[in-house]
Amino acid sequence: MTARYLGFLRCPRCGLQTPEAEASFGCRDCARAGVGVNLTPAYALTPGPLPWEASERGIFGFRGLLPLAPHDVPISLGEGATPLLALNRLGPRLGMRRLMLKDETRNPTWSYKDRLAAVAVTKAAASGASTVIVSSTGNHGAAVAAYAAAAGLGCVVLTVSSVPRQLSTLMQAYGAFVVAYESGPDRWSVMRAAVDAFGWTPMSGLMSPPLGSNPFGIEGYKTIAYELWRQLGETPDVVVVPTAYGDGLAGIRRGFADLIALGLASRMPRLVAVDPFGAYARGLRSEKTRLPTVLTRRTMAFSVATSVATQQGLDAIRATNGTAVAEQSDDAIARMQLELSSTEGLYAEGASVLAVLAAQQLADRMWLDRDESVVLLSTSTGLKDPDSSAGHLPDLPVLQPTLTALEAALPARMWK
Amino acid sequence: MTARYLGFLRCPRCGLQTPEAEASFGCRDCARAGVGVNLTPAYALTPGPLPWEASERGIFGFRGLLPLAPHDVPISLGEGATPLLALNRLGPRLGMRRLMLKDETRNPTWSYKDRLAAVAVTKAAASGASTVIVSSTGNHGAAVAAYAAAAGLGCVVLTVSSVPRQLSTLMQAYGAFVVAYESGPDRWSVMRAAVDAFGWTPMSGLMSPPLGSNPFGIEGYKTIAYELWRQLGETPDVVVVPTAYGDGLAGIRRGFADLIALGLASRMPRLVAVDPFGAYARGLRSEKTRLPTVLTRRTMAFSVATSVATQQGLDAIRATNGTAVAEQSDDAIARMQLELSSTEGLYAEGASVLAVLAAQQLADRMWLDRDESVVLLSTSTGLKDPDSSAGHLPDLPVLQPTLTALEAALPARMWK
Repeated sequence: MTARYLGFLRCPRCGLQTPEAEASFGCRDCARAGVGVNLTPAYALTPGPLPWEASERGIFGFRGLLPLAPHDVPISLGEGATPLLALNRLGPRLGMRRLMLKDETRNPTWSYKDRLAAVAVTKAAASGASTVIVSSTGNHGAAVAAYAAAAGLGCVVLTVSSVPRQLSTLMQAYGAFVVAYESGPDRWSVMRAAVDAFGWTPMSGLMSPPLGSNPFGIEGYKTIAYELWRQLGETPDVVVVPTAYGDGLAGIRRGFADLIALGLASRMPRLVAVDPFGAYARGLRSEKTRLPTVLTRRTMAFSVATSVATQQGLDAIRATNGTAVAEQSDDAIARMQLELSSTEGLYAEGASVLAVLAAQQLADRMWLDRDESVVLLSTSTGLKDPDSSAGHLPDLPVLQPTLTALEAALPARMWK
Repeated sequence: MTARYLGFLRCPRCGLQTPEAEASFGCRDCARAGVGVNLTPAYALTPGPLPWEASERGIFGFRGLLPLAPHDVPISLGEGATPLLALNRLGPRLGMRRLMLKDETRNPTWSYKDRLAAVAVTKAAASGASTVIVSSTGNHGAAVAAYAAAAGLGCVVLTVSSVPRQLSTLMQAYGAFVVAYESGPDRWSVMRAAVDAFGWTPMSGLMSPPLGSNPFGIEGYKTIAYELWRQLGETPDVVVVPTAYGDGLAGIRRGFADLIALGLASRMPRLVAVDPFGAYARGLRSEKTRLPTVLTRRTMAFSVATSVATQQGLDAIRATNGTAVAEQSDDAIARMQLELSSTEGLYAEGASVLAVLAAQQLADRMWLDRDESVVLLSTSTGLKDPDSSAGHLPDLPVLQPTLTALEAALPARMWK
């Protein structure tokens, strides 16, 4: 046994130990000092092989490195174990020889949030919760709703009125009670009040300014690091993560730190955050404990439209010598989305496409060497918001059933 | 080496050997006798372990059992290796103790057609094709378009004007040239003419009445059998397959036959076809070489809306003591879709839900024993046509950001 969860959480800034029941409210002592810090589950790790239990399903094969008590029953839909695909056509076009995509669209609800939801719902069910609640623009809510269904728990999703219909339908289909609000921040105050009043278990952050999501759920993202290390046989040079509250960054950082603690890896990858409006780039430049906010508006990358960075995200970037990139042009996102799908056969959501654009920016700026191994996290499928692509595609012609009609309609490129 | 592809095809009825270049036109001799028979690639198999090459990606790990020449380069997006999930909540409700779902929504374009497209496009690229063509109501076209993109081939998709917009957007996003026709059969004559005139390589059937799809592609479905056998440690009792042209049935049958030929398995599962209008149930009762047609209309299970069975599908059912079930109520499909997603966290397309309804029918009729192991093939994600579900779900309420407003809106079930 090289890894064991200790059954409590710890503040990564001041070390304060906190019991599981208070997991979602951040470090109490740091909050008094004016700093919002998300807690992290505590483990005992000793060097040795990567823990793997073949009898468990999905990411729970890595159970030794997840915050489960011995008797906790994993709620799994077979999440994780996603392919790492070499972008052999697009990479060289963008000036990178070893550009790869971790295809997280291959999860149970077709987004990487399933890794978070699997662990967060498992812990909620183990604690005796009857209902979970989540604030989400879509992917997170759908993932939590699916796992809550599988666990037989009630689920309430607070979303925004601009959510694409595909996503609200998906969340409702899993049996969640879904309500919308005109503004994002409104949801957090309602969520906090509902958690206090009804004893529901929060699956996303409920502090303002935000600290990040459910601390147990974030641990699920550690498995991305374990998988990358196994798939590559080594640590990649760079991992690019579309980022709102920094859960993915924080989890991936901890996963690689585990590999180092186990004596399996010798270095960290540089972690790159990308968000549409530059909340992380602004946050990195700030020395203040109260992080600066940026203006937001509607964006095709709605899954990571945040006005403010989180401490856990900035810490992950700084600790790994990473950086942050902003990319807010919907037109650039839509064009790159179609370039990715038509050259590599991979149709990713707008937020995921930000990772491609960020890598391109960083290669152009020589922050990346063209021979470095670069992994892009493809967070969710383009099918969650196909209307954003449709506007950049031709109308569907309806033809008479003759060869002549087909020949007349064919674009020149089909004759090359 | 326990398995080797021989480089040609064979008629499963009369044994006629046919070269690869004529793969898509069925058995010439049987056609003269008035029987339409799809050809099958020929192999030499000797008892031994299941061939598996860990260095290959996706289903090409089973390369020894796929119709590739030694120098053929697989076009893979990491398809296959999908989870087999126990329906521990829904199964008992429907009277089955060992009901399982093979979650094929976890493929690169989120449908099981990726297994077919991977092999068919690999063979097309290996043969020097520049353009592939496919007739499809959606999933098949999207899969072929994605793999053609990954291979750098041109792709033409002939679809129907009633195709859901999510699916036409998806096909276009992969760079395919997509055109629609008012009727299904019209497409086959145009496809045949285009193949003759332009030398394009067909990825779906182009004979009328239909024989089934590209014979190399069908081989990709054999990997479902290999995976099931590995996941269960034995052959399941029953596999239920949503069926239009019987490609899945034929491939799964051949996969289990391979396992028997290798000396690994001792029996076949009973294969069950389900289609909305009973084409397979009618076909099974017919003694004629010209198969009977059934009336079709718009259906939520549009992916498997066929008016006629195929010989390859009927052969697979008969050879395994299987059966065929019809289920045409859109209301029943939509209700079961939501029951599956809200009890198990699995949101599947209408055609996939037919498999659940078929198992329920067969359990009610005692054709299935409640202790038998039953695998349902979940062919594609519900995200390809979420509008069909939306009509059965409540409107999304937009609330004022207060706890009182949330409390007033909550349905009674959230208080249980």
